[in-house]
Amino acid sequence: MDNERLKKQIEFIVEIDKIKKICRQTLLMDGSRNENDAEHSWHLALMAMVLSEYFPHNLDLFKVIKMLLVHDLVEIDAGDTFCYDEKANEDKAEREQKAASRIFGLLPPDQEKEFRALWEEFEEQKTSEAQFAASLDRMQPLLHNYHTKGHTWVKYDVKYDKVIKRIQPLEKSSPVLWEYVLEILEDAIKKGYLKRND
Amino acid sequence: MDNERLKKQIEFIVEIDKIKKICRQTLLMDGSRNENDAEHSWHLALMAMVLSEYFPHNLDLFKVIKMLLVHDLVEIDAGDTFCYDEKANEDKAEREQKAASRIFGLLPPDQEKEFRALWEEFEEQKTSEAQFAASLDRMQPLLHNYHTKGHTWVKYDVKYDKVIKRIQPLEKSSPVLWEYVLEILEDAIKKGYLKRND
Repeated sequence: MDNERLKKQIEFIVEIDKIKKICRQTLLMDGSRNENDAEHSWHLALMAMVLSEYFPHNLDLFKVIKMLLVHDLVEIDAGDTFCYDEKANEDKAEREQKAASRIFGLLPPDQEKEFRALWEEFEEQKTSEAQFAASLDRMQPLLHNYHTKGHTWVKYDVKYDKVIKRIQPLEKSSPVLWEYVLEILEDAIKKGYLKRND
Repeated sequence: MDNERLKKQIEFIVEIDKIKKICRQTLLMDGSRNENDAEHSWHLALMAMVLSEYFPHNLDLFKVIKMLLVHDLVEIDAGDTFCYDEKANEDKAEREQKAASRIFGLLPPDQEKEFRALWEEFEEQKTSEAQFAASLDRMQPLLHNYHTKGHTWVKYDVKYDKVIKRIQPLEKSSPVLWEYVLEILEDAIKKGYLKRND
Protein backbone atom coordinates (compact mmCIF):
# COMPACT_ATOMS: atom_id res chain seq x y z
CA MET A 1 0.00 0.00 0.00
CA ASP A 2 1.48 3.37 -1.01
CA ASN A 3 -1.18 5.37 0.82
CA GLU A 4 0.86 6.58 3.81
CA ARG A 5 -2.10 8.38 5.34
CA LEU A 6 -4.34 5.31 5.41
CA LYS A 7 -1.43 3.21 6.65
CA LYS A 8 -1.07 5.49 9.69
CA GLN A 9 -4.82 5.45 10.32
CA ILE A 10 -4.94 1.66 10.26
CA GLU A 11 -1.92 1.48 12.55
CA PHE A 12 -3.84 3.64 15.06
CA ILE A 13 -6.95 1.47 14.72
CA VAL A 14 -4.88 -1.66 15.41
CA GLU A 15 -3.01 -0.04 18.33
CA ILE A 16 -6.15 1.05 20.19
CA ASP A 17 -7.34 -2.56 20.34
CA LYS A 18 -5.08 -2.73 23.42
CA ILE A 19 -7.55 -0.65 25.42
CA LYS A 20 -9.73 -3.77 25.62
CA LYS A 21 -7.10 -5.18 27.99
CA ILE A 22 -6.91 -2.16 30.32
CA CYS A 23 -8.86 -3.16 33.41
CA ARG A 24 -10.67 -0.79 35.72
CA GLN A 25 -11.41 -1.25 39.43
CA THR A 26 -15.12 -1.41 38.64
CA LEU A 27 -16.85 -4.77 38.21
CA LEU A 28 -19.49 -5.47 35.57
CA MET A 29 -22.94 -5.02 37.08
CA ASP A 30 -23.34 -8.81 37.45
CA GLY A 31 -20.13 -8.84 39.51
CA SER A 32 -18.48 -11.45 37.28
CA ARG A 33 -15.26 -9.63 36.38
CA ASN A 34 -13.59 -6.23 36.10
CA GLU A 35 -14.74 -3.86 33.41
CA ASN A 36 -12.25 -2.71 30.80
CA ASP A 37 -11.76 0.74 29.27
CA ALA A 38 -13.32 -0.07 25.89
CA GLU A 39 -16.54 -1.32 27.52
CA HIS A 40 -16.56 1.65 29.89
CA SER A 41 -16.14 4.16 27.04
CA TRP A 42 -18.93 2.52 25.05
CA HIS A 43 -21.24 2.63 28.08
CA LEU A 44 -20.52 6.32 28.69
CA ALA A 45 -21.26 7.20 25.05
CA LEU A 46 -24.63 5.44 25.34
CA MET A 47 -25.34 7.19 28.64
CA ALA A 48 -24.64 10.53 26.95
CA MET A 49 -27.24 9.70 24.30
CA VAL A 50 -29.82 8.73 26.92
CA LEU A 51 -29.23 11.42 29.55
CA SER A 52 -28.38 14.53 27.50
CA GLU A 53 -31.70 16.19 28.38
CA TYR A 54 -30.50 16.69 31.97
CA PHE A 55 -27.61 18.90 30.87
CA PRO A 56 -27.62 22.40 29.28
CA HIS A 57 -29.67 22.32 26.08
CA ASN A 58 -27.14 24.06 23.85
CA LEU A 59 -24.64 21.28 24.44
CA ASP A 60 -22.76 19.82 21.44
CA LEU A 61 -23.68 16.17 22.11
CA PHE A 62 -21.60 14.88 19.19
CA LYS A 63 -18.49 16.43 20.72
CA VAL A 64 -19.34 14.93 24.13
CA ILE A 65 -19.58 11.48 22.56
CA LYS A 66 -16.33 11.84 20.61
CA MET A 67 -14.64 12.98 23.84
CA LEU A 68 -15.97 9.96 25.73
CA LEU A 69 -14.84 7.57 22.99
CA VAL A 70 -11.24 8.82 23.17
CA HIS A 71 -10.93 9.93 26.81
CA ASP A 72 -9.22 6.78 28.10
CA LEU A 73 -6.94 6.00 25.13
CA VAL A 74 -3.90 7.31 27.00
CA GLU A 75 -4.38 4.48 29.49
CA ILE A 76 -2.97 2.05 26.89
CA ASP A 77 0.43 3.33 28.05
CA ALA A 78 -0.36 5.06 31.34
CA GLY A 79 -2.65 2.37 32.78
CA ASP A 80 -5.87 2.96 34.67
CA THR A 81 -5.21 5.20 37.66
CA PHE A 82 -7.66 4.40 40.46
CA CYS A 83 -9.37 7.68 41.34
CA TYR A 84 -8.96 7.16 45.11
CA ASP A 85 -5.25 6.20 44.88
CA GLU A 86 -3.57 9.47 45.90
CA LYS A 87 -0.02 8.34 45.25
CA ALA A 88 -0.70 7.04 41.74
CA ASN A 89 -2.48 10.28 40.93
CA GLU A 90 0.64 12.34 41.66
CA ASP A 91 2.37 11.62 38.34
CA LYS A 92 -0.79 10.73 36.39
CA ALA A 93 -0.79 13.92 34.29
CA GLU A 94 2.83 13.46 33.23
CA ARG A 95 2.36 9.78 32.34
CA GLU A 96 -0.78 10.57 30.36
CA GLN A 97 0.76 13.47 28.40
CA LYS A 98 3.56 11.17 27.27
CA ALA A 99 1.03 8.49 26.30
CA ALA A 100 -1.04 11.03 24.37
CA SER A 101 1.99 12.05 22.33
CA ARG A 102 2.75 8.48 21.35
CA ILE A 103 -0.78 7.20 20.75
CA PHE A 104 -2.39 10.19 19.01
CA GLY A 105 0.96 10.63 17.24
CA LEU A 106 0.26 7.45 15.28
CA LEU A 107 -2.43 9.36 13.34
CA PRO A 108 -1.82 11.74 10.42
CA PRO A 109 -1.02 15.26 11.81
CA ASP A 110 -4.49 16.78 11.27
CA GLN A 111 -6.20 13.90 13.06
CA GLU A 112 -3.56 13.80 15.78
CA LYS A 113 -4.42 17.44 16.46
CA GLU A 114 -8.18 16.76 16.43
CA PHE A 115 -8.04 13.72 18.74
CA ARG A 116 -5.56 15.29 21.14
CA ALA A 117 -7.68 18.44 21.34
CA LEU A 118 -10.72 16.32 22.31
CA TRP A 119 -8.71 14.58 25.02
CA GLU A 120 -7.26 17.85 26.33
CA GLU A 121 -10.66 19.52 26.41
CA PHE A 122 -11.91 16.60 28.49
CA GLU A 123 -8.95 16.84 30.86
CA GLU A 124 -9.18 20.62 31.29
CA GLN A 125 -12.85 20.52 32.34
CA LYS A 126 -13.57 24.06 31.19
CA THR A 127 -16.31 23.59 28.59
CA SER A 128 -19.88 22.41 29.24
CA GLU A 129 -19.18 19.43 26.98
CA ALA A 130 -16.16 18.35 29.02
CA GLN A 131 -18.13 18.79 32.25
CA PHE A 132 -21.00 16.66 30.96
CA ALA A 133 -18.58 13.97 29.81
CA ALA A 134 -16.77 13.98 33.16
CA SER A 135 -20.04 13.84 35.11
CA LEU A 136 -20.98 10.65 33.27
CA ASP A 137 -17.46 9.27 33.82
CA ARG A 138 -18.07 9.69 37.55
CA MET A 139 -21.68 8.59 37.63
CA GLN A 140 -21.20 5.31 35.74
CA PRO A 141 -18.83 3.62 38.25
CA LEU A 142 -21.20 4.74 41.02
CA LEU A 143 -24.02 2.81 39.31
CA HIS A 144 -21.68 -0.18 38.95
CA ASN A 145 -20.73 -0.02 42.61
CA TYR A 146 -24.34 0.23 43.67
CA HIS A 147 -25.21 -2.87 41.61
CA THR A 148 -22.24 -4.88 42.94
CA LYS A 149 -22.99 -4.28 46.62
CA GLY A 150 -20.43 -1.47 46.84
CA HIS A 151 -17.59 -3.62 45.51
CA THR A 152 -14.88 -0.95 45.15
CA TRP A 153 -16.05 1.09 48.16
CA VAL A 154 -15.86 -1.98 50.40
CA LYS A 155 -12.61 -3.32 48.91
CA TYR A 156 -10.71 -0.05 49.42
CA ASP A 157 -12.69 1.23 52.41
CA VAL A 158 -13.85 4.31 50.50
CA LYS A 159 -16.40 6.19 52.61
CA TYR A 160 -19.33 8.50 51.81
CA ASP A 161 -17.38 11.79 51.96
CA LYS A 162 -14.89 10.68 49.31
CA VAL A 163 -17.62 9.41 47.00
CA ILE A 164 -19.56 12.65 47.37
CA LYS A 165 -16.45 14.72 46.68
CA ARG A 166 -15.78 12.72 43.51
CA ILE A 167 -19.35 13.05 42.17
CA GLN A 168 -19.74 16.71 43.30
CA PRO A 169 -19.37 18.25 39.77
CA LEU A 170 -22.80 16.79 39.01
CA GLU A 171 -24.45 19.12 41.56
CA LYS A 172 -23.83 22.12 39.33
CA SER A 173 -23.92 20.49 35.90
CA SER A 174 -27.14 18.51 36.39
CA PRO A 175 -29.39 19.04 39.45
CA VAL A 176 -31.74 16.20 38.37
CA LEU A 177 -28.97 13.61 38.15
CA TRP A 178 -27.37 14.96 41.33
CA GLU A 179 -30.60 14.39 43.23
CA TYR A 180 -30.80 10.86 41.79
CA VAL A 181 -27.22 10.10 42.78
CA LEU A 182 -27.85 11.28 46.35
CA GLU A 183 -30.82 8.89 46.56
CA ILE A 184 -28.69 6.01 45.29
CA LEU A 185 -25.99 6.76 47.86
CA GLU A 186 -28.53 6.96 50.70
CA ASP A 187 -29.85 3.58 49.65
CA ALA A 188 -26.30 2.20 49.43
CA ILE A 189 -25.75 3.28 53.03
CA LYS A 190 -29.03 1.72 54.12
CA LYS A 191 -28.05 -1.56 52.45
CA GLY A 192 -24.56 -1.53 53.96
CA TYR A 193 -22.70 -1.08 50.65
CA LEU A 194 -21.23 2.27 51.71
CA LYS A 195 -20.26 3.66 55.10
CA ARG A 196 -20.60 7.17 56.44
CA ASN A 197 -17.41 8.74 57.75
CA ASP A 198 -16.92 8.30 61.49
CA MET B 1 -37.46 8.65 43.06
CA ASP B 2 -40.72 9.86 41.58
CA ASN B 3 -39.20 10.74 38.23
CA GLU B 4 -40.60 7.86 36.14
CA ARG B 5 -38.80 9.01 33.02
CA LEU B 6 -35.34 8.98 34.60
CA LYS B 7 -36.13 5.67 36.27
CA LYS B 8 -36.75 4.08 32.88
CA GLN B 9 -33.60 5.62 31.43
CA ILE B 10 -31.47 4.27 34.27
CA GLU B 11 -33.10 0.85 33.92
CA PHE B 12 -32.02 0.84 30.26
CA ILE B 13 -28.47 1.94 31.17
CA VAL B 14 -28.23 -0.89 33.71
CA GLU B 15 -29.72 -3.47 31.31
CA ILE B 16 -27.30 -2.74 28.48
CA ASP B 17 -24.36 -3.60 30.73
CA LYS B 18 -25.15 -7.18 29.68
CA ILE B 19 -23.73 -6.55 26.21
CA LYS B 20 -20.27 -6.71 27.79
CA LYS B 21 -20.89 -10.45 28.20
CA ILE B 22 -21.99 -11.13 24.61
CA CYS B 23 -19.00 -12.79 22.95
CA ARG B 24 -18.19 -12.62 19.28
CA GLN B 25 -16.28 -15.16 17.20
CA THR B 26 -13.48 -12.65 16.69
CA LEU B 27 -10.44 -12.67 18.96
CA LEU B 28 -8.76 -9.54 20.28
CA MET B 29 -5.83 -8.62 18.04
CA ASP B 30 -3.35 -10.13 20.52
CA GLY B 31 -5.29 -13.43 20.27
CA SER B 32 -5.80 -13.67 24.03
CA ARG B 33 -9.59 -14.03 24.15
CA ASN B 34 -12.83 -13.42 22.27
CA GLU B 35 -13.99 -9.88 21.75
CA ASN B 36 -17.36 -8.81 23.18
CA ASP B 37 -20.05 -6.62 21.65
CA ALA B 38 -19.37 -3.55 23.81
CA GLU B 39 -15.68 -3.50 22.85
CA HIS B 40 -16.58 -4.14 19.21
CA SER B 41 -19.10 -1.27 19.14
CA TRP B 42 -16.59 1.10 20.74
CA HIS B 43 -13.94 0.12 18.18
CA LEU B 44 -16.32 0.69 15.26
CA ALA B 45 -17.28 4.15 16.54
CA LEU B 46 -13.59 5.09 16.70
CA MET B 47 -13.03 3.68 13.21
CA ALA B 48 -15.86 5.85 11.92
CA MET B 49 -14.14 8.93 13.37
CA VAL B 50 -10.80 7.99 11.79
CA LEU B 51 -11.97 6.74 8.37
CA SER B 52 -14.91 9.00 7.52
CA GLU B 53 -12.93 10.78 4.77
CA TYR B 54 -13.09 7.63 2.61
CA PHE B 55 -16.88 7.73 2.46
CA PRO B 56 -19.22 10.27 0.80
CA HIS B 57 -18.51 13.75 2.15
CA ASN B 58 -22.09 14.71 2.91
CA LEU B 59 -22.39 11.85 5.39
CA ASP B 60 -23.96 12.51 8.81
CA LEU B 61 -21.08 11.11 10.87
CA PHE B 62 -22.87 11.67 14.18
CA LYS B 63 -25.71 9.45 13.01
CA VAL B 64 -23.24 6.78 11.87
CA ILE B 65 -21.64 6.76 15.31
CA LYS B 66 -24.97 6.59 17.14
CA MET B 67 -25.98 3.70 14.87
CA LEU B 68 -22.75 1.85 15.62
CA LEU B 69 -23.15 2.37 19.36
CA VAL B 70 -26.61 0.77 19.38
CA HIS B 71 -26.38 -1.69 16.46
CA ASP B 72 -25.65 -4.79 18.56
CA LEU B 73 -27.90 -4.11 21.58
CA VAL B 74 -30.45 -6.64 20.37
CA GLU B 75 -27.82 -9.34 20.88
CA ILE B 76 -28.38 -9.10 24.64
CA ASP B 77 -31.42 -11.30 23.99
CA ALA B 78 -30.77 -12.68 20.50
CA GLY B 79 -27.07 -13.52 21.00
CA ASP B 80 -24.29 -12.99 18.48
CA THR B 81 -25.16 -14.73 15.23
CA PHE B 82 -21.97 -15.80 13.44
CA CYS B 83 -22.12 -14.27 9.96
CA TYR B 84 -21.08 -17.51 8.22
CA ASP B 85 -23.54 -19.71 10.15
CA GLU B 86 -26.35 -20.12 7.59
CA LYS B 87 -28.71 -22.00 9.87
CA ALA B 88 -28.50 -19.51 12.72
CA ASN B 89 -29.09 -16.69 10.25
CA GLU B 90 -32.46 -18.13 9.20
CA ASP B 91 -34.38 -16.86 12.22
CA LYS B 92 -31.98 -14.03 13.13
CA ALA B 93 -34.33 -11.25 11.99
CA GLU B 94 -37.23 -12.59 14.03
CA ARG B 95 -35.15 -13.09 17.17
CA GLU B 96 -33.71 -9.60 16.84
CA GLN B 97 -37.05 -7.87 16.29
CA LYS B 98 -38.33 -9.41 19.49
CA ALA B 99 -35.19 -8.35 21.34
CA ALA B 100 -35.49 -4.80 19.98
CA SER B 101 -39.04 -4.53 21.33
CA ARG B 102 -37.98 -5.58 24.81
CA ILE B 103 -34.68 -3.72 25.09
CA PHE B 104 -35.54 -0.40 23.42
CA GLY B 105 -38.95 -0.69 25.11
CA LEU B 106 -37.25 -0.07 28.45
CA LEU B 107 -36.73 3.55 27.40
CA PRO B 108 -39.35 6.32 27.54
CA PRO B 109 -41.47 6.20 24.31
CA ASP B 110 -39.72 9.08 22.49
CA GLN B 111 -36.28 7.56 23.08
CA GLU B 112 -37.52 4.05 22.30
CA LYS B 113 -38.60 5.41 18.91
CA GLU B 114 -35.28 7.20 18.35
CA PHE B 115 -33.08 4.22 19.28
CA ARG B 116 -35.17 1.70 17.42
CA ALA B 117 -35.13 3.90 14.31
CA LEU B 118 -31.32 4.00 14.43
CA TRP B 119 -31.16 0.23 14.70
CA GLU B 120 -33.70 -0.28 11.91
CA GLU B 121 -31.90 2.14 9.61
CA PHE B 122 -28.72 0.14 10.20
CA GLU B 123 -30.49 -3.14 9.47
CA GLU B 124 -32.22 -1.90 6.32
CA GLN B 125 -28.98 -0.73 4.69
CA LYS B 126 -30.67 1.88 2.54
CA THR B 127 -29.00 5.15 3.62
CA SER B 128 -25.35 6.12 3.08
CA GLU B 129 -24.95 6.30 6.86
CA ALA B 130 -26.16 2.72 7.33
CA GLN B 131 -23.90 1.52 4.51
CA PHE B 132 -20.87 3.23 6.01
CA ALA B 133 -21.66 1.75 9.43
CA ALA B 134 -22.11 -1.75 7.94
CA SER B 135 -18.88 -1.48 5.94
CA LEU B 136 -16.97 -0.82 9.14
CA ASP B 137 -18.83 -3.66 10.88
CA ARG B 138 -17.48 -5.98 8.17
CA MET B 139 -14.01 -4.50 7.89
CA GLN B 140 -13.16 -4.59 11.61
CA PRO B 141 -13.39 -8.40 12.07
CA LEU B 142 -11.32 -8.77 8.90
CA LEU B 143 -8.55 -6.71 10.54
CA HIS B 144 -8.89 -8.84 13.68
CA ASN B 145 -8.66 -12.04 11.65
CA TYR B 146 -5.62 -10.78 9.78
CA HIS B 147 -3.88 -9.96 13.07
CA THR B 148 -4.73 -13.32 14.64
CA LYS B 149 -3.38 -15.44 11.79
CA GLY B 150 -6.85 -15.92 10.31
CA HIS B 151 -8.34 -17.29 13.54
CA THR B 152 -12.01 -17.45 12.54
CA TRP B 153 -11.32 -18.28 8.88
CA VAL B 154 -9.16 -21.24 9.90
CA LYS B 155 -11.43 -22.40 12.74
CA TYR B 156 -14.54 -22.54 10.54
CA ASP B 157 -12.78 -23.24 7.22
CA VAL B 158 -14.11 -19.99 5.73
CA LYS B 159 -12.48 -19.47 2.33
CA TYR B 160 -11.65 -16.41 0.21
CA ASP B 161 -14.91 -16.28 -1.77
CA LYS B 162 -17.08 -16.10 1.34
CA VAL B 163 -14.92 -13.38 2.88
CA ILE B 164 -15.02 -11.36 -0.34
CA LYS B 165 -18.79 -11.73 -0.57
CA ARG B 166 -19.18 -10.50 3.00
CA ILE B 167 -16.96 -7.44 2.52
CA GLN B 168 -18.28 -6.65 -1.01
CA PRO B 169 -20.43 -3.63 0.04
CA LEU B 170 -17.16 -1.76 0.61
CA GLU B 171 -16.36 -1.86 -3.14
CA LYS B 172 -19.12 0.61 -3.89
CA SER B 173 -19.18 2.59 -0.65
CA SER B 174 -15.43 3.21 -0.40
CA PRO B 175 -13.05 2.33 -3.27
CA VAL B 176 -9.98 3.32 -1.21
CA LEU B 177 -10.82 1.00 1.69
CA TRP B 178 -11.90 -1.72 -0.75
CA GLU B 179 -8.47 -1.63 -2.39
CA TYR B 180 -6.83 -1.78 1.04
CA VAL B 181 -8.94 -4.77 2.07
CA LEU B 182 -8.04 -6.64 -1.13
CA GLU B 183 -4.35 -6.11 -0.32
CA ILE B 184 -4.83 -7.41 3.23
CA LEU B 185 -6.62 -10.50 1.91
CA GLU B 186 -3.89 -11.18 -0.67
CA ASP B 187 -1.33 -10.97 2.10
CA ALA B 188 -3.45 -13.26 4.31
CA ILE B 189 -3.42 -15.84 1.51
CA LYS B 190 0.35 -15.48 1.07
CA LYS B 191 0.84 -16.00 4.81
CA GLY B 192 -1.47 -19.02 4.90
CA TYR B 193 -4.17 -17.38 7.08
CA LEU B 194 -6.83 -17.69 4.37
CA LYS B 195 -7.32 -20.22 1.60
CA ARG B 196 -8.58 -19.70 -1.91
CA ASN B 197 -11.56 -21.80 -2.94
CA ASP B 198 -10.60 -25.03 -4.69
